[in-house]
Amino acid sequence: MNSDQNSPKSTHVGWIGTGVMGKWMCKHVMEAGYKVTVFTRTKSKAEELLAMGAAWAESPRDVASKSDLTFSMVGYPKDIRDTYFGENGILSGAKKNSIVVDMTTGPPSLAQEIFNEAKKREVHAVDAPVSGGDVGAREGKLSVMIGGEKQIAERLNTIFQLMGKTINYMGPAGAGQHTKMCNQVLLANTMLGVAESLVYGYKAGLNLEKVIAAIGSGAAGGWAINNLGPKMLQGDFDPGFFVEHFVKDLGIALEEARRTNLALPGLALVDQLYVSLLANGKGRLGTQALALALEQMNNVELRK
Amino acid sequence: MNSDQNSPKSTHVGWIGTGVMGKWMCKHVMEAGYKVTVFTRTKSKAEELLAMGAAWAESPRDVASKSDLTFSMVGYPKDIRDTYFGENGILSGAKKNSIVVDMTTGPPSLAQEIFNEAKKREVHAVDAPVSGGDVGAREGKLSVMIGGEKQIAERLNTIFQLMGKTINYMGPAGAGQHTKMCNQVLLANTMLGVAESLVYGYKAGLNLEKVIAAIGSGAAGGWAINNLGPKMLQGDFDPGFFVEHFVKDLGIALEEARRTNLALPGLALVDQLYVSLLANGKGRLGTQALALALEQMNNVELRK
Repeated sequence: MNSDQNSPKSTHVGWIGTGVMGKWMCKHVMEAGYKVTVFTRTKSKAEELLAMGAAWAESPRDVASKSDLTFSMVGYPKDIRDTYFGENGILSGAKKNSIVVDMTTGPPSLAQEIFNEAKKREVHAVDAPVSGGDVGAREGKLSVMIGGEKQIAERLNTIFQLMGKTINYMGPAGAGQHTKMCNQVLLANTMLGVAESLVYGYKAGLNLEKVIAAIGSGAAGGWAINNLGPKMLQGDFDPGFFVEHFVKDLGIALEEARRTNLALPGLALVDQLYVSLLANGKGRLGTQALALALEQMNNVELRK
Repeated sequence: MNSDQNSPKSTHVGWIGTGVMGKWMCKHVMEAGYKVTVFTRTKSKAEELLAMGAAWAESPRDVASKSDLTFSMVGYPKDIRDTYFGENGILSGAKKNSIVVDMTTGPPSLAQEIFNEAKKREVHAVDAPVSGGDVGAREGKLSVMIGGEKQIAERLNTIFQLMGKTINYMGPAGAGQHTKMCNQVLLANTMLGVAESLVYGYKAGLNLEKVIAAIGSGAAGGWAINNLGPKMLQGDFDPGFFVEHFVKDLGIALEEARRTNLALPGLALVDQLYVSLLANGKGRLGTQALALALEQMNNVELRK
């Protein structure tokens, strides 16, 4: 496969995992004219794509055997492992010189393992997790963080641009996942700042909409206070990104940190608060539900 | 004093505290044509203002007795207390119907105490802490958060606009200080996110400038990662805002929270890390020095 072939006419694309994110990302690729073969565990979730003309395959292996370029966007680390290393997994079917791209957020060490195993089979593996949530996926405005061989990453640039507005090559295999972890470490601590700030303001009797307006554009300001802060006040916990997936990500970051003797006390604390949301059956709410943990702890309710 | 009188011609302004912030704020007021009387503990720090034509007074009491509008921008809560309640303090000298404005960041409960004591003397007190640091003060781009009587706050709008670009009336006495605390609670947690994210990325072998570029504009992004993150990487710890003043602020927020039975575990953790900077003689560095606490804890150094 040379770079000319990475065009809609000549490139067969495989897509594995058509959930809340994957469905939209795959759709953007199809809309650009690529022929796509899909597989996802629950076939009904692929119906829209099949109706658009995608071909169905019976396994990741089957998808990969028909594709020059195979993407995966699945769930937990175990799902990634099954998708790549299982009996009917991608690597058992991938063609020589094809490219396999895992866009799931997963352990950097697993991305390296996939890369090494793929290399043995003369397959190019790339880790390319994204940030931007379901809205970013729908609007094709994700941020894509890429690890793997640079010349392979460059060949993917055109197709990544169908899904994202910020495409960053970060380094060798695993570097995309590590960058995503940097994002989650920053976001987790920031979310706690947003929740604590609003609970403090509530207890002080302040008008919290005014507080967000006053502090959201200064040195403390950022995306989270301005976008998720108002949702916390409105009690709008619809998921842009599920608590249960965030807990997965924070667990990956903590495991990687522990493996390298890295103490991250803030991350460890925020992780525990998010785990307490799981304990209360709130895993399918959005990450802004962290406010509920602070409310429960303090016996207050932000919504008037 | 009616609102007409709040003009440079007819309003005598007093200014107490001409440190790194107060000097610039007072200068903007003078440049608008106000006659100003100043006092500061270390007279040499007022020299520039005196050379511009400010009058010198021997005490806060002396300043207040000559002013329709007296501003204070001092240091620690003890300094605020001395400045207002001391034998030669503002309240012993303030004229009836004059306005006194404390712009120092201090305890909300102290702001309420000043307000009540002032009221007994028929003096109007306002708390109006700011955010934006020395750069914001110099450029007249502070964010001003106001507590006190609304009609008094409105009469100050013109003069606040000389110092700040965002002027927010937040509610009764203490509400300005409480809002500043919301800002600091959010900022503190965010700073820990920035430092932990970069230390994680360092340990993972990533190019940290690229990491900031990749995550700074997404859901995790904000002012701190984009402005203080690069300084952490460069080892530039010049103070925009001193660690020792931030520790003061976090202590105020924690005390207010404890007084009202409010648990803020993230804030408590970040406070301890900033206190560890004081233990290491780093109180006069900027708040971005939090990176040094994470580096020391993890035996790494971000700067190559």
